[in-house]
Amino acid sequence: MIIPGFRFAATAAGIKKAGGLDLALMVADAPAAAAGVFTTNRVKAAPVTLSRQRLKAGKAQAILVNAGNANACTGPQGLQDAWETTRQAAKLLNISERLVLPASTGVIGQPLPAPKIAAALPQLAARLHPGGFLEASQAIMTTDTRPKTAILKEKIVGREITLAGMAKGAGMIHPNMATLLVFIFTDAAAHPRILKRLLLEALPVSFNRITVDGDTSTNDTALFLASGRAENALVQEPGPPMLELGEMLKEVMGDLASQVVADGEGARRIYRVEVLGAASPADALKAARTVALSPLVKTAMAGADVNWGRIMAALGRSGARFDPELVDIAYGDHLIARKGQARGPEAEALAQKVIQTGSFIVRIHLHAGDFSDYYDTCDLTEDYIRINASYRS
Amino acid sequence: MIIPGFRFAATAAGIKKAGGLDLALMVADAPAAAAGVFTTNRVKAAPVTLSRQRLKAGKAQAILVNAGNANACTGPQGLQDAWETTRQAAKLLNISERLVLPASTGVIGQPLPAPKIAAALPQLAARLHPGGFLEASQAIMTTDTRPKTAILKEKIVGREITLAGMAKGAGMIHPNMATLLVFIFTDAAAHPRILKRLLLEALPVSFNRITVDGDTSTNDTALFLASGRAENALVQEPGPPMLELGEMLKEVMGDLASQVVADGEGARRIYRVEVLGAASPADALKAARTVALSPLVKTAMAGADVNWGRIMAALGRSGARFDPELVDIAYGDHLIARKGQARGPEAEALAQKVIQTGSFIVRIHLHAGDFSDYYDTCDLTEDYIRINASYRS
Repeated sequence: MIIPGFRFAATAAGIKKAGGLDLALMVADAPAAAAGVFTTNRVKAAPVTLSRQRLKAGKAQAILVNAGNANACTGPQGLQDAWETTRQAAKLLNISERLVLPASTGVIGQPLPAPKIAAALPQLAARLHPGGFLEASQAIMTTDTRPKTAILKEKIVGREITLAGMAKGAGMIHPNMATLLVFIFTDAAAHPRILKRLLLEALPVSFNRITVDGDTSTNDTALFLASGRAENALVQEPGPPMLELGEMLKEVMGDLASQVVADGEGARRIYRVEVLGAASPADALKAARTVALSPLVKTAMAGADVNWGRIMAALGRSGARFDPELVDIAYGDHLIARKGQARGPEAEALAQKVIQTGSFIVRIHLHAGDFSDYYDTCDLTEDYIRINASYRS
Repeated sequence: MIIPGFRFAATAAGIKKAGGLDLALMVADAPAAAAGVFTTNRVKAAPVTLSRQRLKAGKAQAILVNAGNANACTGPQGLQDAWETTRQAAKLLNISERLVLPASTGVIGQPLPAPKIAAALPQLAARLHPGGFLEASQAIMTTDTRPKTAILKEKIVGREITLAGMAKGAGMIHPNMATLLVFIFTDAAAHPRILKRLLLEALPVSFNRITVDGDTSTNDTALFLASGRAENALVQEPGPPMLELGEMLKEVMGDLASQVVADGEGARRIYRVEVLGAASPADALKAARTVALSPLVKTAMAGADVNWGRIMAALGRSGARFDPELVDIAYGDHLIARKGQARGPEAEALAQKVIQTGSFIVRIHLHAGDFSDYYDTCDLTEDYIRINASYRS
């Protein structure tokens, strides 16, 4: 997995209690066009504050990420730590510290172990290599059980363009405007303004349509760096080249978002809640999101229980306008409720088989209008509790 | 537990799969002043529709309740079943069917077994007796592990007044405007308009401040019947007698609400999230509710983990306005975070002991204004999943 113009490295700096890779450096050969979106949580981690500020320049050359500590709720010292660790990285890379974007994920409210990061930086910088993408994607994991990466190579804008991304996240996932940690790299040449716009357009069909537990993180960050090494004509305004690049980005980000849901804490089953026939776009989204978030629907899926009544109850409190006696609900291709009422034991048996496949669509038709939307989510199992009741210990 | 003017009875009608008491009848000796509040869920069960309609007259003489089947999402047949079963009860009681209020709780989307109810009604009516309050409170349970009742006897309005209530509910609990099933009885004489007003005033300090899982039921119902047997001067307008009766009602409903949270599905620990210093009443409520609902906070409590960072993250996405660097958080009397930052391992050890008591207050000071509010909730344990993944089977 090589993205022309970028090098990567990871190391075990001793930040995670359990050990393992926990510090990654991602570096462009020269300053890259850059854009980012961040958490909408009022409580923002120090690296979010610093990265957001530095991205105003529209360029960046390095990303320094640690797992095991969120550097959130850490006050002025947290900002100082984010600043100091990126300064040290910049020095080793011989670039301006303003070109280094920090990102952190892990426990909230504990001081960042900056000395450990400082001690690990020299060998981390020395290890940078074009093939280090996968090891970097491993170093940003927390409760994730596997790394999430996606890569696309396509001939667009008159060149063979590579676009690759990595993401981490398994709990505290209910992104809004941004996501947990997502880093996207391309060798296309594009203006930072275009990168930002494409990011914002890709979110509603990727990370803003997934939920694991409804908890929006303090550290959600998505960064998009373009090295320009493909030497295409700079994409700097709307038009076919921008659309082509946007399609690649949506594909990569959609793929990563699916991987995040599939690796949801304790998840054994993933499903898409698709709402059709809503009275407005907002109604469609509210209905899909409320059903996707319902713990009672999630636990029913964990038990392979075709308890569509819980879906009706969730729809009813969602705020979406509809007539309960018109609602159709299908699991996969099997209609289980028609006009708000059960279709009987046979339909139920077929729907149960759909749940047992482990990956399926719940299709809800409100018959209230022409709008649709969706949300991807996972079931809620005893393992979610086990993981989160003991996360810090 | 005798409430002058009322008789109760319960029986096993074979509605619950597991067997046991599942049908209750509650009858006033004569038509009683009556008021009710119902679910705000757009999907309303048939008994909710019928009871709401019948209560417009401001009087009722009987409540017919079944557990094991919600009679929700059952279409015209569901309404017909609610109507027919109350008609049969009325006939046995020799009263008008318009004086019988139906209520149901249990699985959504399955036809009410009306013939089983019809078959059980004669012996149920024959069993009615003034001491049947407790058995009736047992018959309305679903996943509840124990009945919830509260009784108060006080000298108010120039008489010794009795006010007693029963409630059921352990899951699908996030009442809004009303609650699961709550039945309140008093021998005071009061106008239905006053009963309704007192119910609405008591909800914000009882059932509208508790949450188990954020799922609002399709069947939430609170009914308040006053027999007038105490022969006090009819309470029919605002004034000291109304306030006295209101205080009794708040006490009984607050007590019942606490019992519901304590019996939350799988709950081992209960806690109150108290928010102080909010910029507005709405901000205080949003902050308290969001923290109380957070699955990550709930699982941390299950693990006795003083993970106050999750509280900060929940506050941050609540929509309440505040400066994260001013927030104080205490578990019981132990301040764990000051000005948005950790106070260290010793404070944490003390806070952990508070969690381990099993019943405590989390006090959050936003330092953004003068408003406060609270929410009562319980921890989220593996048993919640176990109960809900297999509820119907």
